[in-house]
Amino acid sequence: MSGPIKTAVVGATGYAGFELARLLLRHPKLAAPLFFGRDTGETGADLGKVFPHISGNGAHRLLPLSLEEIEKHELDLLFFATPHELSREWIPQAIARGLRVVDLSGAWRLKSASHRAVYGFDEGNDSAAKLADTAVYGLPEIHHNRLHDARLVANPGCYATSVILALAPLVRAGLVASDHGVVCDCKSGVSGAGKQPTPRTHFVEVAENLSVYSAFGHRHTGEILEQVGLGEDQLTFTPHLLPIARGILSTIYVRLKEPVDAATIEQCLRNFYSGCSWVRVFSPPQLPQIQYCTRTNYCDLGFNLSPDGGRLVLVSCLDNLLKGAAGQAVQNMNVMYGWGEREGLN
Amino acid sequence: MSGPIKTAVVGATGYAGFELARLLLRHPKLAAPLFFGRDTGETGADLGKVFPHISGNGAHRLLPLSLEEIEKHELDLLFFATPHELSREWIPQAIARGLRVVDLSGAWRLKSASHRAVYGFDEGNDSAAKLADTAVYGLPEIHHNRLHDARLVANPGCYATSVILALAPLVRAGLVASDHGVVCDCKSGVSGAGKQPTPRTHFVEVAENLSVYSAFGHRHTGEILEQVGLGEDQLTFTPHLLPIARGILSTIYVRLKEPVDAATIEQCLRNFYSGCSWVRVFSPPQLPQIQYCTRTNYCDLGFNLSPDGGRLVLVSCLDNLLKGAAGQAVQNMNVMYGWGEREGLN
Amino acid sequence: MSGPIKTAVVGATGYAGFELARLLLRHPKLAAPLFFGRDTGETGADLGKVFPHISGNGAHRLLPLSLEEIEKHELDLLFFATPHELSREWIPQAIARGLRVVDLSGAWRLKSASHRAVYGFDEGNDSAAKLADTAVYGLPEIHHNRLHDARLVANPGCYATSVILALAPLVRAGLVASDHGVVCDCKSGVSGAGKQPTPRTHFVEVAENLSVYSAFGHRHTGEILEQVGLGEDQLTFTPHLLPIARGILSTIYVRLKEPVDAATIEQCLRNFYSGCSWVRVFSPPQLPQIQYCTRTNYCDLGFNLSPDGGRLVLVSCLDNLLKGAAGQAVQNMNVMYGWGEREGLN
Amino acid sequence: MSGPIKTAVVGATGYAGFELARLLLRHPKLAAPLFFGRDTGETGADLGKVFPHISGNGAHRLLPLSLEEIEKHELDLLFFATPHELSREWIPQAIARGLRVVDLSGAWRLKSASHRAVYGFDEGNDSAAKLADTAVYGLPEIHHNRLHDARLVANPGCYATSVILALAPLVRAGLVASDHGVVCDCKSGVSGAGKQPTPRTHFVEVAENLSVYSAFGHRHTGEILEQVGLGEDQLTFTPHLLPIARGILSTIYVRLKEPVDAATIEQCLRNFYSGCSWVRVFSPPQLPQIQYCTRTNYCDLGFNLSPDGGRLVLVSCLDNLLKGAAGQAVQNMNVMYGWGEREGLN
Repeated sequence: MSGPIKTAVVGATGYAGFELARLLLRHPKLAAPLFFGRDTGETGADLGKVFPHISGNGAHRLLPLSLEEIEKHELDLLFFATPHELSREWIPQAIARGLRVVDLSGAWRLKSASHRAVYGFDEGNDSAAKLADTAVYGLPEIHHNRLHDARLVANPGCYATSVILALAPLVRAGLVASDHGVVCDCKSGVSGAGKQPTPRTHFVEVAENLSVYSAFGHRHTGEILEQVGLGEDQLTFTPHLLPIARGILSTIYVRLKEPVDAATIEQCLRNFYSGCSWVRVFSPPQLPQIQYCTRTNYCDLGFNLSPDGGRLVLVSCLDNLLKGAAGQAVQNMNVMYGWGEREGLN
Repeated sequence: MSGPIKTAVVGATGYAGFELARLLLRHPKLAAPLFFGRDTGETGADLGKVFPHISGNGAHRLLPLSLEEIEKHELDLLFFATPHELSREWIPQAIARGLRVVDLSGAWRLKSASHRAVYGFDEGNDSAAKLADTAVYGLPEIHHNRLHDARLVANPGCYATSVILALAPLVRAGLVASDHGVVCDCKSGVSGAGKQPTPRTHFVEVAENLSVYSAFGHRHTGEILEQVGLGEDQLTFTPHLLPIARGILSTIYVRLKEPVDAATIEQCLRNFYSGCSWVRVFSPPQLPQIQYCTRTNYCDLGFNLSPDGGRLVLVSCLDNLLKGAAGQAVQNMNVMYGWGEREGLN
Repeated sequence: MSGPIKTAVVGATGYAGFELARLLLRHPKLAAPLFFGRDTGETGADLGKVFPHISGNGAHRLLPLSLEEIEKHELDLLFFATPHELSREWIPQAIARGLRVVDLSGAWRLKSASHRAVYGFDEGNDSAAKLADTAVYGLPEIHHNRLHDARLVANPGCYATSVILALAPLVRAGLVASDHGVVCDCKSGVSGAGKQPTPRTHFVEVAENLSVYSAFGHRHTGEILEQVGLGEDQLTFTPHLLPIARGILSTIYVRLKEPVDAATIEQCLRNFYSGCSWVRVFSPPQLPQIQYCTRTNYCDLGFNLSPDGGRLVLVSCLDNLLKGAAGQAVQNMNVMYGWGEREGLN
Repeated sequence: MSGPIKTAVVGATGYAGFELARLLLRHPKLAAPLFFGRDTGETGADLGKVFPHISGNGAHRLLPLSLEEIEKHELDLLFFATPHELSREWIPQAIARGLRVVDLSGAWRLKSASHRAVYGFDEGNDSAAKLADTAVYGLPEIHHNRLHDARLVANPGCYATSVILALAPLVRAGLVASDHGVVCDCKSGVSGAGKQPTPRTHFVEVAENLSVYSAFGHRHTGEILEQVGLGEDQLTFTPHLLPIARGILSTIYVRLKEPVDAATIEQCLRNFYSGCSWVRVFSPPQLPQIQYCTRTNYCDLGFNLSPDGGRLVLVSCLDNLLKGAAGQAVQNMNVMYGWGEREGLN
């Protein structure tokens, strides 16, 4: 490929989309990125009007979303930071025109039909179903090799990333007594709920509060089960809404098949992530905190072991807009094009 | 008066309306209060469904707002915690049926036509205009004597209460050099913006932020000018949105006609509020903080004087939902019916 | 008993002690309460200097802590809101002088020597050990009958209260498969960490953050095990520090011995707390949130059940300074003296 | 100059010092920076132990502060992020050894002896007094030309930066009626108060609160007066403590000598900052908010004008740890060495 890669973000006016816009604007391997609005109301306006944070850096006009525009600009790679319905509608057309795509929605993440059911897609749509089968789940620490040639990368959910990165090494090493059940108690900042104002995201309803939502019903559950390899009744995943703007902390409870010492767990994690730029393993008793990784692309992992060595508490932290969304999307792009995993993310 | 007073709240599902509901439910002089929803969508539901905070205290059904219902329940006093348009529409009808009314909106607070203009009322409406002239501005520390016989009490704005209570004693004592201008830099928690979700009240837009709004254009300006007795160009009032749920702190800057000592200022304030239950005067250098008065009906006043005695910084704090809204409404009721000012507010 | 009860708070200058002071000041069955400082530096000062929140309510001088003072005032009941070392030192002397005591520290809560070990008490101290055996664990929903004659009431820990009230009914009903392990993922506001400034409670370290602490080592673990009746390795309890001032939400994960329906769980909870004033049971799918119970003495319980009926997520919320400390202490006093459980707590 | 510049931070374990460490670590013109602890207790430890945020980036050992260490490493430029007493003690020695220094404390900012009095320096100390006279006030937008040859740069206070950048252009243009007084109502996040835990910075005392402090007595007052050119009684500066971690918003009230239109004000600001990389001027009615500039080195300026054109409200926002401290220090270094002003700050 000669010359810098040409990219665009569809949905740059949401929280994750804007974070992505900021990352792409300073990525050293890219031509100036383009930005598409979600609907016609936004197009024509400058992104700096919606997010004055970037005013002073020149103009960034929001283009209308249309196939003509996409073709006109001869783009190489398209990022979708859109609701899954919109991703489901537009991405097959973009792929058909030869573009590569990284989708930040849940539209293409799931392999099993029963898990997909929560999204209510039209499964009679053959071309979409076929496309779904070829999509690569964009967790570079796990699917690195499949990303090089991927045409469609399904960027993982923020909760799912935090849970999978903590659990996968231990489950694969055969340490987890999954019949006792794995508990994932996950807490997220409000930006994960999107920019649309709702009663749930009203400041007064969130500040000085904590609440559980979607118990036994969150859409990220399927991703976790598929990627970690657990059965429906082996994992309990409960999301909580934290009174902070960004960041996820997942506390994960595991019973071990047999008692181990802390060094075994730490070694298992360190081996698995050896060579990975964006996972940090903490040595016990120190545990990750949200503040250590917000505004970075790190997923931080730590753990404490019960005195008898049989019960394990894992703590996994990340920034839901970076490693949980836009940062991971850039990391995926870096792998897709053979660049260094840290490129544009420091 | 025989038997307990019968009251109702119109708009009990907003933040101020609900706070009022809670106060009335435990007020010792009242019959069980009734609650009207703002629109038909809410009626029939239980107030405890909207605010689980009060679940467990029995049922509190939201009644449909209609003249029939109002008449049927033989109410004595009606509180309106509604948008000003709705207050403007319904209150004349309630008054005409012999009820007394305390209105928490801005519909009846202003005396001068030029100040009223910001609300865009139909000033050709004679009966409303006549009613407006008879409304008593419900700041009991200032209009105590007029409340006993008032049929319509216009409960003051939250910002206005905090500023008027700080300034009125000093202006009336002739201490203020108003030609130099009075600056009111006011900061409010988010509940003052109402319960309707908007981009401005989204948690992510408020947390870790501070913003100015309505500079030179906030609707409470007219109330302050009228009650304190200052001219349009003598007062600059700038509201700010704080990342907290409730509470107002107003920092008020005054130049004095001639240098004074701190004792003069403190005495002026203490004399003015002698006998008032709900204003606390702090002695310098101690100043009020929002935390001291939230969840109470107090307005806390304090000040610091420049070393040369010529410049005065006043600090006024209150809870925007209590002394700035529902608490003051109850205080007004207490005075209207000749009860102790602290009744039901401790 | 003739005349109102005479009470005092030792340690009224901490967060829980001050909350208690406020409650006692307006309790209808009590004489004016007295307040002892923790050390001589505070004594003589007015409580309103430390907490301007209550200024304007008259003077409340902090008395020096001494046996002479305690005897002089002919007190009936003494509340200790002090570190456990101080409770351990002073309470036997108070009991010996015929006073009744409610202690808010962990000094007298534990029955088993192995659990007590975490506090490092001198177990060779016979009189203290004997006193410990007679102390009643002050959870009125469980030990109601033993409170009437109790001389020493050990007020439960805040986390422990939230967990025990959720678990006890289900464990006693034989529903819980405790061999699979019970997970208690608990989140608390910062006031639970006390008023002493530390690096952990610095605003900048807490805001926009969430952190785990004391995994597998929190002192409340023993209380929970003893009261619920679980073995050391059957319960995993992980506390988290929330960026809010007050409130606890505990998410509790339980495997059931056999699948049940939601009505069975709800009935079990409702039966257990029938007649209890300060526990509210929510019907699924609605769950408690911290905001519903802060500034009240309620413990709110709710739950969601997995689709297969085998896994249960319980949510328990309370205000750590009220039902988790001072409110519960007043509730205990109410039962000790045969008053209504809600007296002074509404 | 051959080879990259060698720098070090004294006091890298405070909030501003750590922010500076992060900036220097990725500055393209520098050799690997060194870090000195404030006291011997910290030395030897790794900076990543104190701030796990940077763990995973290699080791950064904290060196003991001594002249031997400073000389051994042949440093070019030393940053002091230390209390002013320590800056006052060490910096003359560093300068005497030929190093250039940027000091983030208030030790060298003030020119007038009366303003210096608030710091209580020993003014009989001749060499320190002489050094103070040669120090350049490090506000690059104003003293750009004097920075090239400066040996000692006194980095401005955070509040002072926000106020001076807003006021200087208008005062210099002769627009301000300073006899009416200028009011600076300034609000800052808690990181400005330093990392040392104190009762004032305890989470519970800051959250859900707002408080005034140091009215008529804040140390930054002298800087503002000297740099803007106003007399003692012409400026009232009141700091407030916001419940956020970082960011300052200053609302500044000015009476104009004669009525002007908004274009005049905007042009005055734009002309003054033409060519400046780190000041953004907003067009009315849009105003800066803290969220737009946190985590950047921008100072954002905006304003609203009264309808009669006679009263001006200026709003100035910056990140107190960046443009208010560490970012500005790097910007100063960039100018001192003739590099682009944005170098290492994007």
